[in-house]
Amino acid sequence: MANIITDITRPTDEELALARSVTPATIHEAQDRIGALDPSIKPIKHGLTVCGPAFTVQCTPGDNIMLIAAIGTAKPGDVLVVSAGGLRVQGGFGEVLATACASRGIAGLIIDAGVRDGAAIRKMGFPVFSTGLAMHGTVKETVGFINHPIVVGGIAINPGDIVSGDDDGVVHLKRADITRVCTAGRAREEKEDGIMQSLRDGGDILEISGMRQRLIDKGCTWDKS
Amino acid sequence: MANIITDITRPTDEELALARSVTPATIHEAQDRIGALDPSIKPIKHGLTVCGPAFTVQCTPGDNIMLIAAIGTAKPGDVLVVSAGGLRVQGGFGEVLATACASRGIAGLIIDAGVRDGAAIRKMGFPVFSTGLAMHGTVKETVGFINHPIVVGGIAINPGDIVSGDDDGVVHLKRADITRVCTAGRAREEKEDGIMQSLRDGGDILEISGMRQRLIDKGCTWDKS
Amino acid sequence: MANIITDITRPTDEELALARSVTPATIHEAQDRIGALDPSIKPIKHGLTVCGPAFTVQCTPGDNIMLIAAIGTAKPGDVLVVSAGGLRVQGGFGEVLATACASRGIAGLIIDAGVRDGAAIRKMGFPVFSTGLAMHGTVKETVGFINHPIVVGGIAINPGDIVSGDDDGVVHLKRADITRVCTAGRAREEKEDGIMQSLRDGGDILEISGMRQRLIDKGCTWDKS
Amino acid sequence: MANIITDITRPTDEELALARSVTPATIHEAQDRIGALDPSIKPIKHGLTVCGPAFTVQCTPGDNIMLIAAIGTAKPGDVLVVSAGGLRVQGGFGEVLATACASRGIAGLIIDAGVRDGAAIRKMGFPVFSTGLAMHGTVKETVGFINHPIVVGGIAINPGDIVSGDDDGVVHLKRADITRVCTAGRAREEKEDGIMQSLRDGGDILEISGMRQRLIDKGCTWDKS
Amino acid sequence: MANIITDITRPTDEELALARSVTPATIHEAQDRIGALDPSIKPIKHGLTVCGPAFTVQCTPGDNIMLIAAIGTAKPGDVLVVSAGGLRVQGGFGEVLATACASRGIAGLIIDAGVRDGAAIRKMGFPVFSTGLAMHGTVKETVGFINHPIVVGGIAINPGDIVSGDDDGVVHLKRADITRVCTAGRAREEKEDGIMQSLRDGGDILEISGMRQRLIDKGCTWDKS
Amino acid sequence: MANIITDITRPTDEELALARSVTPATIHEAQDRIGALDPSIKPIKHGLTVCGPAFTVQCTPGDNIMLIAAIGTAKPGDVLVVSAGGLRVQGGFGEVLATACASRGIAGLIIDAGVRDGAAIRKMGFPVFSTGLAMHGTVKETVGFINHPIVVGGIAINPGDIVSGDDDGVVHLKRADITRVCTAGRAREEKEDGIMQSLRDGGDILEISGMRQRLIDKGCTWDKS
Repeated sequence: MANIITDITRPTDEELALARSVTPATIHEAQDRIGALDPSIKPIKHGLTVCGPAFTVQCTPGDNIMLIAAIGTAKPGDVLVVSAGGLRVQGGFGEVLATACASRGIAGLIIDAGVRDGAAIRKMGFPVFSTGLAMHGTVKETVGFINHPIVVGGIAINPGDIVSGDDDGVVHLKRADITRVCTAGRAREEKEDGIMQSLRDGGDILEISGMRQRLIDKGCTWDKS
Repeated sequence: MANIITDITRPTDEELALARSVTPATIHEAQDRIGALDPSIKPIKHGLTVCGPAFTVQCTPGDNIMLIAAIGTAKPGDVLVVSAGGLRVQGGFGEVLATACASRGIAGLIIDAGVRDGAAIRKMGFPVFSTGLAMHGTVKETVGFINHPIVVGGIAINPGDIVSGDDDGVVHLKRADITRVCTAGRAREEKEDGIMQSLRDGGDILEISGMRQRLIDKGCTWDKS
Repeated sequence: MANIITDITRPTDEELALARSVTPATIHEAQDRIGALDPSIKPIKHGLTVCGPAFTVQCTPGDNIMLIAAIGTAKPGDVLVVSAGGLRVQGGFGEVLATACASRGIAGLIIDAGVRDGAAIRKMGFPVFSTGLAMHGTVKETVGFINHPIVVGGIAINPGDIVSGDDDGVVHLKRADITRVCTAGRAREEKEDGIMQSLRDGGDILEISGMRQRLIDKGCTWDKS
Repeated sequence: MANIITDITRPTDEELALARSVTPATIHEAQDRIGALDPSIKPIKHGLTVCGPAFTVQCTPGDNIMLIAAIGTAKPGDVLVVSAGGLRVQGGFGEVLATACASRGIAGLIIDAGVRDGAAIRKMGFPVFSTGLAMHGTVKETVGFINHPIVVGGIAINPGDIVSGDDDGVVHLKRADITRVCTAGRAREEKEDGIMQSLRDGGDILEISGMRQRLIDKGCTWDKS
Repeated sequence: MANIITDITRPTDEELALARSVTPATIHEAQDRIGALDPSIKPIKHGLTVCGPAFTVQCTPGDNIMLIAAIGTAKPGDVLVVSAGGLRVQGGFGEVLATACASRGIAGLIIDAGVRDGAAIRKMGFPVFSTGLAMHGTVKETVGFINHPIVVGGIAINPGDIVSGDDDGVVHLKRADITRVCTAGRAREEKEDGIMQSLRDGGDILEISGMRQRLIDKGCTWDKS
Repeated sequence: MANIITDITRPTDEELALARSVTPATIHEAQDRIGALDPSIKPIKHGLTVCGPAFTVQCTPGDNIMLIAAIGTAKPGDVLVVSAGGLRVQGGFGEVLATACASRGIAGLIIDAGVRDGAAIRKMGFPVFSTGLAMHGTVKETVGFINHPIVVGGIAINPGDIVSGDDDGVVHLKRADITRVCTAGRAREEKEDGIMQSLRDGGDILEISGMRQRLIDKGCTWDKS
C-alpha cells in the first residue's frame, strides 16, 4: 500500500516570510511550549538554519528508497522531513543526495537518523538536521509513503506544515496556526529586544521581569549568609 | 522554606589568579583525580573557558525562577552553578538571561540541563557549560535555594568554591584547597612543559616517563612478531 | 602474560596511497557495508582525517600504561588503535602524549574512550578519534597487549590492517582486501562524481538512480493529493 | 485552550474480542510492521497484558493533573494512554491512582514516563506499561488535553484506536483497521501453530520456512569447514 | 589522605522505626520532593526493601578495596552506601561479600555501579540496590574514604543519614529531619489509605482530589466530542 | 560471498563438563578479567543459564535469514551466538524459532538485539540472552555468514569457543583455554566456599581477605570520628 502523494498544500509566501522572521524557540514559546522535536535532532554544523513547508517521508528503518523518491518529487523551498526509525547508526543520506537536493532547490533535510559524507555536506552548507553522522549505509528495498502524516522526534507532522530549525533544534508549526503564532512571536521578540536593551543599559533583571515580587509572593526569604 | 543567601565568602584575588593559571584537567590531577563534573556538561562552543567562585542555585526541574533570582543577586566575576535536575530536553536559559548575565559581569553559567538561543549566545561568546541545546522552555512557579550546598554533575559544591571549565568540561575545587592544589598544579604543568620540550627535541617517551622500567617490573615481555 | 609485539606487517606504500584516495564511507560501501566502528567514535574537531596501518593496543579500563608503551614503539605513519573498555568518562590521553605522538610522526589515535586537554590538542591539529573529551585521569598499573588482535567500537582489528577516519567516523579494512576494496571504491567515487555533475546540470535523480522503475516494480502508487 | 473531550467512539465488542484474540507482535506483523511503541515502554511486571480502546491524555512533563482528570472521565474497559514528555525520572502515577483506576474498571495505563509505588501496584496486578519505576513526584499546575490526538513512544494515536500490550511492549492499531488486521493476524497465528507443531514433530525449519531455496537463490554457499 | 572514620552518629531506634513505617516515595513527597537517588539504582529483584543509617564508602572507579574495608567496619543494621563512579559495567560486589555482609548483620547495599553473582545473591535475599548486574571484576589498589560525605545517584549523603529503598528506588533523608518528615509522611499515608477506601467504595476521584474545581479554575473546558 | 560453514570443532565432553562446573563470573576472573560480553546482553528471565559451544551467526541488522539458516544447521547442545548489529528495537527471534531451537536440542541463543514473543519464550524456558524484548520484526533479504569469526557485545568469538551465561550476563572462553581456565576457576570457587563458611562462622572479612594489612601498607588511616 506504499504511496506517494505529489501535491500538497503549502503555506502562502506571506506565511513563510512571517515564519522566517522569528526563531524556532520563539515559535515554541508562542504556541504554548509545544512542537519541539526531540533535541537529539540537531544541525550538522553550528549556524545552519532552515524554515519551510514539510515534505514528509516515511522510510523503513535502514532503507532510503523513499528519500530518493522524495528528492525527485519535492519543489524548491520544501523541507524534507523524514521518519526513518530513529537509528542513529545509519546514514542513508550523503553527498550525492545532498547535491541532488541543492540542485533542485530543496531547502533542507530533517531526519531522525544519521547521515554520512558529513565533511562534504558541511562544506556545501546544505542544511541537514539529523541525529549525527554515521557511515553505515542503507538498502533500497522497501517502499513507504510520501506526504502522509508522520511522527519525527516525537512530534506528529502533516505535509505542508512549517518546520523551522536552528542550533537549538527543530520546531513544528501547523499550517493553520502560522499567522496567529508567528504574529505573537514577533511581538514577543520585540518585547525581548526592549528588555535586552534595558539590561545592557544597567536595568535590574529582577525588576524588569517582575520576579522579585513573585519570589516574595511565593514565600521566598533572604538572608545575609 | 525556599531561601536566598545573598552574601558568600569568595576566594581572594590571589587565589583566583592562581586557579586561573592552571587548566581544569591539571586541577583534577593535582587534587588526586577528584572533582570532575559529569562529562556531559560541556561548553556550548569549542574554546570557551570559565573560572571563578561558584554562586550556587537549586532549581526545581523545568523551572527557572531561581536562576533569574541568582542573576539579579550575583556579583561580577561569579559563576552561576545550577542544579536543575539533569533534564537535557529543557532550556531555561536563553539570550535574554545571557544578556542579563553579561551586563552584570557574571563570568559564566554551569548547568546540568540544556539552554536555548544557542546561536545567539555562541555569537555573544558568553561562557555557558550545559548538557547541550534544547528549545523546550521552563516555568517560573516553584521557588528554591540560592547559595546553599548543591550537587551538579555528581559533585557536591558549596558557594564560594572554585569551578573551572574548558573544552574538557568542568572541575570543582574547594576554597580551602585552592593554594595547595593550584601550586602543585603549577609545578606539574611546568614539569610537563619540560617533558613536551624534550619530546619535541626527539626524546623517548618510554625513558622520559620511566615507563620502560615499570613495564619490565610488571612482567611485560617483548617479541619480534 | 602481558606482551608487546614490536614488528608488524604493514600495507605497502601503494596500498596506503590507494586507501587514502577514497573516503571511509566509500570503503564501507565497497566492502559490502561492513567495518564501520561504532559511530560514538568521532574526530575531536570537524575536518580531521586519518588513514594508516593499525598499531593495536589493549589497555585495561582506566589505565593508560600500554598506550604510553605503544607511543614509544610505533613507527611514523602508524595509527594507534586503542581498546580501553569504552569508558567515556575517562581521558588517558592528553597534551603530553599528543606531543609525543606528533614528535614521533604517529599519524593519529583511535580510542573507545575519552581524551583530555582537548583545547590544546585541537590547536595542535593532531588527529584524535575518541568518544569525546573527559578530564578524569587514568592510572599506570596494569600491563596489557600491543599488536595482538583487539575489538574497538564493535569491530575486530588486527595489527597492520587499515583504519581510515573522517567526520563520519572510522572504518576498518583488512590488509588483504585493500587493493580489491579500494579499487572498487575508486570506481564508485568516480561514478558518483559523474552522477553529481549530472545532478548539478539539472538531471533527475529518479531517472539517474533508476529508482522510478524500481518504485513501480515494487508496487508504489502515485496520487495527486 | 486546554480541553477535555468526554465522548469518544470506541471499537465494537466484536472488534475488541478480535483484537484480544491475537498478540501485540502479531498485530504488528499483520499491519506490515508498523505501530509498535518505543520498546522502552514495558509492563511493570512479567505477564501483564492489556488490550482496549485508547483514552488519550496529553500531560505537561512533570504534571499529572490531566491524568487524574482522565481517570475520572474514562469508561470501564478503556486504556489510559498518556503522553507525558518521556521523562523517566518522574512518577506521576502511584497506588492511589491505580486504586482509582481499578475501582472504575479502567483496563490499564500506558505512559511514556515512570510510575511509583511499584511494589503495591505489582501486588494489585493493575496493568501498567511505563518506562519503569521512579519515585519523583509531579505537580498539578498545568492543564492539557484529553481525547485529542497524541504521540506516545513515537506513534501517533487517536482516541478510540486499539492499544494492545504484553511483555513485548505495546502496539497501536487504528480503529478502521481492526477487522482487516486482526483477521489476517488470526490466520497468521493459526499458520504458526501448525508450523510449531511440525517443528515439534521433527520438521526441518529450512524446509518448512522455504529458506533453503531462498538462501540458494541469493547466492549463499555451504562449506564443510 | 585515605581515611576511615569508624564511629558515626546513628539515628535513634525510635527514629529508625518511624522511618521504616513509611515508604521511600512517601519520604520523598513529605520532604518536598527531594532526596530521590537517580532511578537507575534499583533493587536486584522485585520486593526487596532496605531502611537504615548510611555507612558511606568512597571507592575509586573499578576498585573495591574500600567496600571490603567497610564491610569489616560497619555495625549490624547499617546500610552500605557506596560511591563507585557510576560504572555500570563493573561488579565489585558478589556472593562472598554478600555472605560477609549477611553474617555481620549489615542491612543492605546501595551502590552506583553493577554487582555480580546476581543469581546467588537473589537466592540469599540480601537487599542490594545497584545499577544492575555485571560480571566485570574490580581491583584492590587504591584506598579511599569511609564515613566521609559522598554523592551517590546525584544526592549528597552524610554518614548516619537515613537511606530507604524499595522497588521505586532509594531516597535519602537527613538525620535531623527524620521525625518531622516521617511524622508528616505517616499522616499522608493515613490520609491516602482513607482516600483509597473511598475510591474502592465508589468515590469519584475528581471530587475526592478536588481536581474538578481546580481544572475549572485553570480554564479547562469540556466537550461532548 | 555469503557462506555457511557446517562443520565446526567443538570442545570435548570433558571440557564442556568442566566449563559447566563453574559460573560465568568465575570464568571471567580465572582468565584475568577478560571475555565478558557487554552487560546489556542478559537472560530474558532471572535464573536462566546456558553453557556450550558457540555456533556463530553474522546477520545484517534488521534481517534474520541467517538465524533461521543457523537453527537448521546447528547440532544439539550448540549455543547460537548472533551478531545482529546491536539494534535493541528489533526482535528477529520469536516463539516459532524458539520452538525450532528447542525441538532440535539447541542449548540457547545469545544475540546483541531484541527478541519477541517474550511471554511465550519465558514460559517455554528456552534460554535466550538478548538486549531485551521488542516486537519490531525483521526481513529475510540479505545473506550473511555462519561459523565465521564474529564480534558480539564487544568480544571477538570463534565458532566452537565456549559461551557461558547466567543472570550476570555472558562470558566467552577460547576453546584452547577451557581446561586451564576452568581448573583454576574450580580451585577459586572451592577457596571461596571455604571463605564463605568462615564468614558464616563469624570470621572477620578484613583478616580473611588480608585487606587490613594492605590498607595499612597503602597509607590508609583510621579515626574515631
